[in-house]
Amino acid sequence: MSDSSFIPGIARIMDLSQLQSLAEKIFSDVRDLTFDGVGVTRESYGKGESAAAGYLRELALSEGLEVEADRAANLVFRQPGVPKDAPVVWVGSHIDSVPQGGNYDGLAGVVAGLLCLIARQREGAAGLPPFEVVAFRGEESAWFGKAYVGSSALLGKLSEADLALTQRSTGATLADSMQEVGADVAAIRAGERLFDPERVHAYLELHIEQGPVMVARELPLAVVSGIRGNIRHNHVLCLGDAQHSGVVPRWLRHDAMFAVADLIMRLDEHWRVLLERGTDLVVTAGIVNTDPAEHSISRIPGQVKFSFEARSKSSDTLEAFYQLMRAECTAISRERGVKFEFDRRLLSEPATMDEGICKLLSTACAARNAPYEVIPSGAGHDASLFANAGIPSGMLFVRNQHGSHNPHEAMDIDDFMLGVQVLGDVLEKYTG
Amino acid sequence: MSDSSFIPGIARIMDLSQLQSLAEKIFSDVRDLTFDGVGVTRESYGKGESAAAGYLRELALSEGLEVEADRAANLVFRQPGVPKDAPVVWVGSHIDSVPQGGNYDGLAGVVAGLLCLIARQREGAAGLPPFEVVAFRGEESAWFGKAYVGSSALLGKLSEADLALTQRSTGATLADSMQEVGADVAAIRAGERLFDPERVHAYLELHIEQGPVMVARELPLAVVSGIRGNIRHNHVLCLGDAQHSGVVPRWLRHDAMFAVADLIMRLDEHWRVLLERGTDLVVTAGIVNTDPAEHSISRIPGQVKFSFEARSKSSDTLEAFYQLMRAECTAISRERGVKFEFDRRLLSEPATMDEGICKLLSTACAARNAPYEVIPSGAGHDASLFANAGIPSGMLFVRNQHGSHNPHEAMDIDDFMLGVQVLGDVLEKYTG
Repeated sequence: MSDSSFIPGIARIMDLSQLQSLAEKIFSDVRDLTFDGVGVTRESYGKGESAAAGYLRELALSEGLEVEADRAANLVFRQPGVPKDAPVVWVGSHIDSVPQGGNYDGLAGVVAGLLCLIARQREGAAGLPPFEVVAFRGEESAWFGKAYVGSSALLGKLSEADLALTQRSTGATLADSMQEVGADVAAIRAGERLFDPERVHAYLELHIEQGPVMVARELPLAVVSGIRGNIRHNHVLCLGDAQHSGVVPRWLRHDAMFAVADLIMRLDEHWRVLLERGTDLVVTAGIVNTDPAEHSISRIPGQVKFSFEARSKSSDTLEAFYQLMRAECTAISRERGVKFEFDRRLLSEPATMDEGICKLLSTACAARNAPYEVIPSGAGHDASLFANAGIPSGMLFVRNQHGSHNPHEAMDIDDFMLGVQVLGDVLEKYTG
Repeated sequence: MSDSSFIPGIARIMDLSQLQSLAEKIFSDVRDLTFDGVGVTRESYGKGESAAAGYLRELALSEGLEVEADRAANLVFRQPGVPKDAPVVWVGSHIDSVPQGGNYDGLAGVVAGLLCLIARQREGAAGLPPFEVVAFRGEESAWFGKAYVGSSALLGKLSEADLALTQRSTGATLADSMQEVGADVAAIRAGERLFDPERVHAYLELHIEQGPVMVARELPLAVVSGIRGNIRHNHVLCLGDAQHSGVVPRWLRHDAMFAVADLIMRLDEHWRVLLERGTDLVVTAGIVNTDPAEHSISRIPGQVKFSFEARSKSSDTLEAFYQLMRAECTAISRERGVKFEFDRRLLSEPATMDEGICKLLSTACAARNAPYEVIPSGAGHDASLFANAGIPSGMLFVRNQHGSHNPHEAMDIDDFMLGVQVLGDVLEKYTG
């Protein structure tokens, strides 16, 4: 399927494939700047993220683009001469990474937007619908235990409790860390919207696929239909009774580790049963630790700290599974003589992508003869916040091997440039 | 039951209860020296242990006793004038503690022996069977992942691999740490016996009970019939595949944490069944950690490190349960697509206490009208090594609340002084 009505438009902007060597240079330079010996580390509101931001800023300026930090310290790139109140499309993604992460998760989308903007600027094409590129900070939950911080701040959705979250290594609060890079924390604390949603008439994001589907199906590109939400606790504490391991019989033990293992296995079993019924769900305990200050081989663990996460396309499933988890904790507390203490529950709502934009992206893929499918996103993205705020949003996935959140991400530059071209094609057509 | 033949002998040495205030002072001083803000921390071959050793040395010298470090850097206390080749009874226990541990685990036995020796010295009683007090270092496995290091070194039983073990906080090797406090590491490495076992015709140890039995049965003292052995791995590594939590479906996951939880629950179920059949067994996973360098709420754990310990009075049970554990790991590897990697297996053999010494201890308890029972020890002790080396050994437990390996140990000083008296009574009678 091919839509030739697309082609004349495309012909108006330069062939984006000419920017491949620039793309390769950007990826390579930013990787070098933020390499940690294993993968890349771009801490939200920290050193690596700011290094990437600084690099992209210089690059954009050298191309004659305008760059400014918004009030949440995200970077906004635009062509000079576009009125600041003109309705625009936003093309965004994030520049932070998980610790020892991969180079493309987030960065690919920002670079894709930038390449489109650079092409426009170099060509000096007038009369095309204007767009801005937004490089979000703080998308990864790995650092402060909360995801989508940069876009949430823009939308006035960071609470006092969010701002009090602390960075996993430095212990600095989110508020202080955001202040450090220039965010208007007072406005964020007051819950102000830091941009005019009326002005942004669409949000587009290119991102690597983080799962194995596109590689398996040999699809260089995919159009995202919707984004899974999640429900989380960063820290659940299971409290038992630390005792010498040799002297307390099984029936008198209050072993926090056995209790947490019990919980995980009960959740695993519920998960299995729900999947058989066709429910969309994944369950993860990404962090589990006995207490280094007191644990030993010969001591019954008196304390285990762990994280809980469930993801689903369905709000109802998230809520139901959450209640199931709490019920199992209650049962285990009774059976094993332990206590569970929960920190604040965090909810990211599932989101649906805009049908019109999905159609545009699909048409553009087809026009470029790119094999593609429409698939859901298992991972969360800034796009879900804009979609749930009523801004028509769309996402384009680029094939990527070995998943993400690890140093082995492997995106083929040809796939990427095809994605950039499709994105450029849509930006040329999209007028809301 | 009372044995009046004991009483005349007792009359020959001073009433040990007069040393109660000295005992209280020693416990209080050593606690103050090694308090860590929560409990006491006396690191094996480290600061806290050496502080305790230094204090006890000064105290003994001030009482006119001789003190020397043996070739494994344990402290030996004796009356001056006792020929160094005279056959003696050893009264020993250890001076190290677990991190944030209690004040009495180990220290009580050393203080008990010292009080008996101080009483002898003050009284100048001649003609009684001579004994020496040994304050062992390195009994707790919490620091180097191996227990009974001080007594093992004396017995020539530390391997090259043992000496290469590293301290949990400093990372220093056991060899370097022992060298640091003056041990003859060359001789230890060569597996030399660093004492003459022919000369030591019995080993006695007083220790707090570390379990809840004596409190429940209202027994101030107990005679130990035997000591549970244990089989351990300090570090088992479960390796899965670290991936973004949102994008890998259940059937494609290789989740190291779910695998370890599965293992723990399988072991828990086997344990339950074995107990119903009357098997003596406890099972513990004291340390369980996802990898702080890579874990996050939104990442499937790719690596979990955990410890394994099984304890039993029976060698056969230990071996059988160990094989069961390995078989379950193999099954889980297959089912969940993970790998288990095991470090060196450590075995401490169960031990039986000498029947004659048990009888002497029981008789002395009865003569002092102390309610007592003969019970097994769930925890391991240096005494097990001497017993298994063919030296007749015996242990006396003193009642203690809240277990051990925690800051809440609570030994009543009256119970302790009763134990010291019984120990003194036996030392007066015992001639092998």
